Amino acid sequence: MDAYAAGVTGSQTTAPRLTAKGQATRERIVAAAAQLMFERGVAGTSTDEVQAKAGVSASQLYHYFADKRALVAAVIAWQADTIVGGQAELFARLDSVEGLRAWRDALVGIQVERRCAGGCPLGTLAGELVETDPEARADLDVAYRRWADGIADGLYRMHDRGELPADADPGKLATAILAAAQGGLVLTQVSRSTEPLEVALDTAIDHVAALVERARAR
Amino acid sequence: MDAYAAGVTGSQTTAPRLTAKGQATRERIVAAAAQLMFERGVAGTSTDEVQAKAGVSASQLYHYFADKRALVAAVIAWQADTIVGGQAELFARLDSVEGLRAWRDALVGIQVERRCAGGCPLGTLAGELVETDPEARADLDVAYRRWADGIADGLYRMHDRGELPADADPGKLATAILAAAQGGLVLTQVSRSTEPLEVALDTAIDHVAALVERARAR
Repeated sequence: MDAYAAGVTGSQTTAPRLTAKGQATRERIVAAAAQLMFERGVAGTSTDEVQAKAGVSASQLYHYFADKRALVAAVIAWQADTIVGGQAELFARLDSVEGLRAWRDALVGIQVERRCAGGCPLGTLAGELVETDPEARADLDVAYRRWADGIADGLYRMHDRGELPADADPGKLATAILAAAQGGLVLTQVSRSTEPLEVALDTAIDHVAALVERARAR
Repeated sequence: MDAYAAGVTGSQTTAPRLTAKGQATRERIVAAAAQLMFERGVAGTSTDEVQAKAGVSASQLYHYFADKRALVAAVIAWQADTIVGGQAELFARLDSVEGLRAWRDALVGIQVERRCAGGCPLGTLAGELVETDPEARADLDVAYRRWADGIADGLYRMHDRGELPADADPGKLATAILAAAQGGLVLTQVSRSTEPLEVALDTAIDHVAALVERARAR
């Protein structure tokens, strides 16, 4: 088992219990903050702007988030939820080469929609926060590990069913696929072309497909 | 041939002809700016600080660089030169699986030295500049393509010698290896562990090794 992709289980969100209405308000604040921080960066986003976008008062915002730091932590968790939870159907199918290719198509499709601008929402937060905010770095680490675990789940199922060779390490394969996605997104953002993302993911998935063929041939 | 990895030849540096002494002064300014921008970001680095670090006057700095924008362009080119030119011996050996593994060890070694902090110098510049500075984005695109071409060169030689299957695409393999390095560096920076970089590069290189075996078996 790979230590990187198997570091975390469960949700990193540690919000207090809220009523359904309170939960919806909190969610609206976080979604607004996430969008603003993706577009303008964390430093370029004020809590005033988050309030305006979410349509809440300062006292409402501070009821849910003691300070901007708490809001940033919630945004990091929200991005991980959106990537893994928002694509739950795709992640559930990551136990086959076809499912991996469908997930790859979805990632490429998002970049086509965004005209390759913006990059990965988690990667953007990482670039801004990793070296200056140790708490955010730890939160981002948890978020990436959730993403890696989401990819690893399907590969472990394939391994259990004997569709991957016994000596293949699903956790490591998941880490490699996540790295291909991250690196591909950086190159796609810089080149404004989906080609590097496509090539990076295709190569990683071709590697899995070759392992499946090897397991089948035995 | 892959369009991504084959986009550029030659150097992107378009400096005017300088005397040896002038060239040395210019180089000292760029190296100082590159280090400061890597540590503090472009926005966090003033030309005053670059002057102080390089030990030059304002008039000297502005003799070589009309403005901060010109300095940023030179820093991007310098980082590409350092990655590809500074590791020329390693890049020359990228025409074998052993050479790829030696290059992987060198990249991991740099991260061990830096305690996994800072990430990729080009990636850091990209994170800060891509969405706000179209000229820097274009410069970064050229820099990444030079890196991809540096990796592709060796793979094309392997392909020419029949050590890679005829249907393998060296340009695409180079893009995938570069993406693995970039994504691995992001995950290594966030996790403060070299493991994701190691796993990402090992998986990409294992894929090349499997192609070499396939070519040999024919």
